[in-house]
Amino acid sequence: MLMGRVVGTVVSTRKDEELVGLKFLLVKQIDCNLVESEKFVVAADAVGAGMGEVVLYASGSSARQTTATNNRPVDATIMAIVDSFDIMGQNRYSKFDEDRSGRFDPVAD
Amino acid sequence: MLMGRVVGTVVSTRKDEELVGLKFLLVKQIDCNLVESEKFVVAADAVGAGMGEVVLYASGSSARQTTATNNRPVDATIMAIVDSFDIMGQNRYSKFDEDRSGRFDPVAD
Amino acid sequence: MLMGRVVGTVVSTRKDEELVGLKFLLVKQIDCNLVESEKFVVAADAVGAGMGEVVLYASGSSARQTTATNNRPVDATIMAIVDSFDIMGQNRYSKFDEDRSGRFDPVAD
Amino acid sequence: MLMGRVVGTVVSTRKDEELVGLKFLLVKQIDCNLVESEKFVVAADAVGAGMGEVVLYASGSSARQTTATNNRPVDATIMAIVDSFDIMGQNRYSKFDEDRSGRFDPVAD
Amino acid sequence: MLMGRVVGTVVSTRKDEELVGLKFLLVKQIDCNLVESEKFVVAADAVGAGMGEVVLYASGSSARQTTATNNRPVDATIMAIVDSFDIMGQNRYSKFDEDRSGRFDPVAD
Repeated sequence: MLMGRVVGTVVSTRKDEELVGLKFLLVKQIDCNLVESEKFVVAADAVGAGMGEVVLYASGSSARQTTATNNRPVDATIMAIVDSFDIMGQNRYSKFDEDRSGRFDPVAD
Repeated sequence: MLMGRVVGTVVSTRKDEELVGLKFLLVKQIDCNLVESEKFVVAADAVGAGMGEVVLYASGSSARQTTATNNRPVDATIMAIVDSFDIMGQNRYSKFDEDRSGRFDPVAD
Repeated sequence: MLMGRVVGTVVSTRKDEELVGLKFLLVKQIDCNLVESEKFVVAADAVGAGMGEVVLYASGSSARQTTATNNRPVDATIMAIVDSFDIMGQNRYSKFDEDRSGRFDPVAD
Repeated sequence: MLMGRVVGTVVSTRKDEELVGLKFLLVKQIDCNLVESEKFVVAADAVGAGMGEVVLYASGSSARQTTATNNRPVDATIMAIVDSFDIMGQNRYSKFDEDRSGRFDPVAD
Repeated sequence: MLMGRVVGTVVSTRKDEELVGLKFLLVKQIDCNLVESEKFVVAADAVGAGMGEVVLYASGSSARQTTATNNRPVDATIMAIVDSFDIMGQNRYSKFDEDRSGRFDPVAD
């Protein structure tokens, strides 16, 4: 899986019928320092992710292994919201701290 | 999924029999600012996409999950036409506006 | 799918038994201006492609969806020969013209 | 498969129900000289890998072929811990030597 | 498939039980001029490839279509040893010539 930050939403009315009911989110890949790369993906949302949240997304056929995406033509799915991650025992990200501090400012993006 | 703009068509008469009846479109990947990258893909069309439209396409085995592409040897399929997308609450693309304004000029490409 | 030009052949006698009878071709990926990239792939041939021809090839599990490649350990298959393609209504490639003019010179490669 | 070094852990409580019980590790891809690249992946752990260990991880649908990950929405799984590897007969890595010498220092990363 | 040269071996005792009995080889991707790239992969060996040999390897789910790798968590498998390949009718590699001349010197790598 890769880590990314949810930065947007995609709206589509004309689509394959298997996609009806799925929510599509724009996700920017992030590295271990939370720096957003230029790479982004449109992912189906299986966990109710919100704008600005750091998430895990699965790609390829693995993106179809959630109840929400089973047998649907999606190749990227958000399947977890990241609470925190550590590198060599040191905390690099805490959702709790970020939410409280407002450190991540969606408008400034 | 990735976002792209439909920029062309590919014609083939000598092909695997499983491909008969499918339409192949040339799609250029676009970023969040609608800038077309050099990367392009030939995608099967499952939704009747038109020239110049911004679309979502699925890759790999997920490209075979539409009725149009089931069990066929295609690894990229357009499965949705994008109406609009937002980044952090700000609209970055609106098909309605683009269609009305003629902002996207196919000939100038 | 990606577009490529057939530039070579690969011969192998010691191989997995599932591969017996398949023809392997060297394909160089091309862009919309027919410029060959450095990227190449060895693809199984499902349509009888010839040297110098512009083809479509499918990758991953989709490469196994042709009659010739079903259940075989191949991850790239030529499943169509390109007759022509257009970008925004303008013809960029025509197999008929190329064949007649001899514009594509295999020896010069 | 690719080789990587386990450098961190990811914690998530809100996730697809198929993921409950899986441990997610941050893995940095390494080259043949053990140099860590900037590329990293979040992989499910099928073998009880520890911090700092050099591992093999499988991607895509192959990541779901272990007992621990079967039918789960994961696209990367650590399926082996590397004891040693040789390049042209010369040892380039030995877990035994590294463990004994403390050459790999997690804190310094 | 991609072409590569076998340059090393990987030893692992702690691994998923589905991997027992498989041999893992380090393969460096090569281009049409036999130049090794920096990219390498650890591939399961389905054909008894030897050190220094030029091989074809399949990636993704296709890597699991050999008898040796069926249902196992491997995403790259050597499924053929290359005897020779031609580019536009000109021979670029011949295993017979290389073996005889000793042109490829494993030790010098």
